[in-house]
Amino acid sequence: MAPYTKPTLVLDEGRARRNIERMTARAAGFGVRFRPHFKTHQSRHIGRIFREFGIEAITVSSVSMASYFAADGWTDILIAFPFNILEAAEIGRLSSACSLGLLAESPAGLAALARRVSAPADIWIKINVGANRAGADWNDTALLARICRETIRHGSLRLRGLLTHNGRTYGARSHDALVRVHADAMRKMLRAQKDLARAGFPDLEISVGDTPSSSRLDDFEGADEIRPGNFVLNDATQLELETCGEEDVAAAVACPVVSMHPARNEAVIYGGAIHLSKDDVLTRRDGRIYGRVCRRRGPGWGRIVPGSVVSSLSQEHGIVRMPAAEIKKLKAGDVLFVLPAHSCLTVDLFREFIGLDGQRIPTIRSCDF
Amino acid sequence: MAPYTKPTLVLDEGRARRNIERMTARAAGFGVRFRPHFKTHQSRHIGRIFREFGIEAITVSSVSMASYFAADGWTDILIAFPFNILEAAEIGRLSSACSLGLLAESPAGLAALARRVSAPADIWIKINVGANRAGADWNDTALLARICRETIRHGSLRLRGLLTHNGRTYGARSHDALVRVHADAMRKMLRAQKDLARAGFPDLEISVGDTPSSSRLDDFEGADEIRPGNFVLNDATQLELETCGEEDVAAAVACPVVSMHPARNEAVIYGGAIHLSKDDVLTRRDGRIYGRVCRRRGPGWGRIVPGSVVSSLSQEHGIVRMPAAEIKKLKAGDVLFVLPAHSCLTVDLFREFIGLDGQRIPTIRSCDF
Repeated sequence: MAPYTKPTLVLDEGRARRNIERMTARAAGFGVRFRPHFKTHQSRHIGRIFREFGIEAITVSSVSMASYFAADGWTDILIAFPFNILEAAEIGRLSSACSLGLLAESPAGLAALARRVSAPADIWIKINVGANRAGADWNDTALLARICRETIRHGSLRLRGLLTHNGRTYGARSHDALVRVHADAMRKMLRAQKDLARAGFPDLEISVGDTPSSSRLDDFEGADEIRPGNFVLNDATQLELETCGEEDVAAAVACPVVSMHPARNEAVIYGGAIHLSKDDVLTRRDGRIYGRVCRRRGPGWGRIVPGSVVSSLSQEHGIVRMPAAEIKKLKAGDVLFVLPAHSCLTVDLFREFIGLDGQRIPTIRSCDF
Repeated sequence: MAPYTKPTLVLDEGRARRNIERMTARAAGFGVRFRPHFKTHQSRHIGRIFREFGIEAITVSSVSMASYFAADGWTDILIAFPFNILEAAEIGRLSSACSLGLLAESPAGLAALARRVSAPADIWIKINVGANRAGADWNDTALLARICRETIRHGSLRLRGLLTHNGRTYGARSHDALVRVHADAMRKMLRAQKDLARAGFPDLEISVGDTPSSSRLDDFEGADEIRPGNFVLNDATQLELETCGEEDVAAAVACPVVSMHPARNEAVIYGGAIHLSKDDVLTRRDGRIYGRVCRRRGPGWGRIVPGSVVSSLSQEHGIVRMPAAEIKKLKAGDVLFVLPAHSCLTVDLFREFIGLDGQRIPTIRSCDF
């Protein structure tokens, strides 16, 4: 059994597999293509589990990550990040290794890109449906049409569809709010699709689907594909959104307890911002937290200790707050498991998962390329 | 000249060298030992610059980091983190490779530790002077005396001194506030030292000194050593605290601009939470920000663009906000340099710095061990 002498990223592969199976079935039920986002796990091993379930198309967030998965035999890869013209050479090489999808949100740079890709690449127009992070506004038909025109001008680019990441689903704190926010995004996407059809660009596909909406909603009418990623591992954020249950969280960080402060119901763990990331989640009951805390059970973890949170993080330290009755049972040298606030960022900090059977499962880190 | 086609951690070594020289001179002026914290740079190369300035004693934040620097010939290493009894075997090995300092904040585990160290290790008692992160309370003389008694009971442990990290200096937003917060910590440390001398434990050293206090204050009367770390690189947090000037920030992340949103005075950069970390700094003028933004100048960066900030971060995206006049000058394919909110966490995300001359300078990441 792994000693977990220092912070260790632990994978419950059975849970990950069940999460994949469930989402594959949901996508089939919606009648849409399932193009899971691989930025959450960044692991060939987990990628291959998706393949067992028949998945052929994937989403990644960087050119480096696309290269990594292309090298493992994936042939339909969408880079869901505005294309970076400074990486045109690497994008060009990739385009001959797989069917490559790229995001554009303006006509700028498309001509330069077109000159570099050797085999035709798909262009998806990134649509802003209200999150205001990136994308062309859904109702700026003139801009959207300019992007379409610029795309089809080049033989090496194929105009494929409209794509959005509706990040607002993470702010929806009830089922009704989630339904509304999703319906609003779909309405805008369908409207943009219709406006562009009228402007002479028919048959554009629609790509949507973050983890909260894909996990909980049943209506993806009008969408051609969904791209959730986080669901494979889940985390404290999805728990807070009630997108998943405790038994669906498939990754946790094992953290040694290094000192006890029972007078303030706190323990210090070896497990800080460099292990969990400084991302947090705003919870109804506990304010901003960096994770939920479980006791060790065998090589893995048991139920969440009620009322326990990671309340603050320094570089290597974490502060765990627990009810007095629970703190009393704990001592330095014990190992706690933290379900992180945001598993995607946590996974990127480690170079491997350790399976419950002790297997080492490599995962890439984007800064390593 | 480096193309900076993707997020790249760039080091201005001349500035780092000047920062080291200045802090070495300050410590000499205070009449204290300078034991710089190496968790900021995590780099053998930068460590060797310290050595050129005569530094012999260093601070690290993990057993892994201690091993890395011991392997490069450092012989006086303090691990400024509550000792983790689960790493007793590795600590034991280290104790014969260098003069090792460890932190204790309770008597628990000291007996087990003592059995594992092969050569005598120094025990520093971690004191809580009010930050309530870790440490034994400064005025809990009974507890402090128990730790002292337990330490000297073991021949393989040497009772060395009292240590604090006065994190409250990061909340001091004026010189007067900084003076007060530092004076309060020193008063408590000296009082604990005196109480323990009376209890039969004389000659305990005092170790203090974060970057804000070490950079700006002139009175370290009563201290035996200071342990600042961040000053070698500085960052947007130190700028906000006016601990350093722009010309003292020695590391920045080069980030390609991937899309422009002039209507909301924003640009999207390739540079997100996995490159900069999700740590932020609360600024007087701009609220919570993830970094300040500079234009490229040659292989490095120029002045901060006035009024520019990294206002939000996703996994791979950053949103840069700039005044309209500045946004107009920018286009996709340009490279911006971000002075991160917290350079220690940013450096931990990369596996190397690139020097202004293109030199690759390896840096470790704690999860790699």
